[in-house]
Amino acid sequence: MFSGAQVSLYPMSDDFVGIILSAIGALDPYRPNFRIETDDVSTLIVGPPDQLFPAMRDLFVAAAGRGVHCVLAATVSRGCPGEPDDPICTPIADSRHDRPLEERVAAAVAHVEAAPRTGRIVAAQFSLYPLGSGHHMDEIYGCIEFLKKSGVFDRSKNFCTKLRGDAGPVFATLSEAFLRFGAPQGHVALDLKVSANSPTAL
Amino acid sequence: MFSGAQVSLYPMSDDFVGIILSAIGALDPYRPNFRIETDDVSTLIVGPPDQLFPAMRDLFVAAAGRGVHCVLAATVSRGCPGEPDDPICTPIADSRHDRPLEERVAAAVAHVEAAPRTGRIVAAQFSLYPLGSGHHMDEIYGCIEFLKKSGVFDRSKNFCTKLRGDAGPVFATLSEAFLRFGAPQGHVALDLKVSANSPTAL
Repeated sequence: MFSGAQVSLYPMSDDFVGIILSAIGALDPYRPNFRIETDDVSTLIVGPPDQLFPAMRDLFVAAAGRGVHCVLAATVSRGCPGEPDDPICTPIADSRHDRPLEERVAAAVAHVEAAPRTGRIVAAQFSLYPLGSGHHMDEIYGCIEFLKKSGVFDRSKNFCTKLRGDAGPVFATLSEAFLRFGAPQGHVALDLKVSANSPTAL
Repeated sequence: MFSGAQVSLYPMSDDFVGIILSAIGALDPYRPNFRIETDDVSTLIVGPPDQLFPAMRDLFVAAAGRGVHCVLAATVSRGCPGEPDDPICTPIADSRHDRPLEERVAAAVAHVEAAPRTGRIVAAQFSLYPLGSGHHMDEIYGCIEFLKKSGVFDRSKNFCTKLRGDAGPVFATLSEAFLRFGAPQGHVALDLKVSANSPTAL
């Protein structure tokens, strides 16, 4: 398994460099478990699939805490066949893929309900791509059922799904959608934008 | 065929609202051919697949012209099976999908070479997802061959490909990759970030 994300942070502020640099400290607890590489467009984080969304949540909540309009964009991937297995990308914990779909939907909802609240309201928009063969349409429908029960489902849009709520359950919902549905060893990609402090938030 | 994009513009400036509002005028020439809907996270443009990347190029070059660090992020899609056919989404012009792959690679390179220059240097990062069945690996390899011959190929990264150069040939390369490879009626999604004026550009 190879899992990770290309992550970018966009603070809509003249002080974007300062906001990014001070938010990056939020990744410190994850550094021992991740490989992290930065260039001018994005930061690559490679590591355990279960920790990708918690790491992005902490990074984004730290940046948004400054109060300026801020967006995190990420391309998240697991099981990409072109990438070598990497021992730091541990298998999905508590995968439950052997259990019936209905039970997994209920477990995913329970994980979201148990997610710690951050006090930061965000809007998230994402597209989930089950790639290659081995994914069943039942899994996709199960994921949609889960999203609608997540408590943070906002609406379906063209090409993507929109969530809204506290960053805790929103990132937990994204993580559950990414980890718990589709073939456990299959290739899944997720295209994500998360926004906070928008002056036009509806 | 249904084709379009969810597009967001992120100017890293206290005046992000002013920069976005003044850049949006660049979409005026496309408005007769597009359906456009905006919310707090992104703007949906639905219309002819061939005009999606020219419209995004003009929007981005207008925003980046102010000199501040600016990013455009988009989720681009054609042939999504969940969307109804829409008469404003005309079939791909000059598709050539009946011609041999090598000839199509050469035609795509020629289109990029003929693209008008904008004078604006950008970095672009994208992932191309051929979804569902009907796409052949030969088409993917042909697309990779084209990208390497495009003149704006920078490097392969984990989960994505990076381009760098004038916005004209960069957006033309993205458009060719999106339109000319994979099944002509198949579902293709493209996850894109384009960056200009980055203080850390390499």
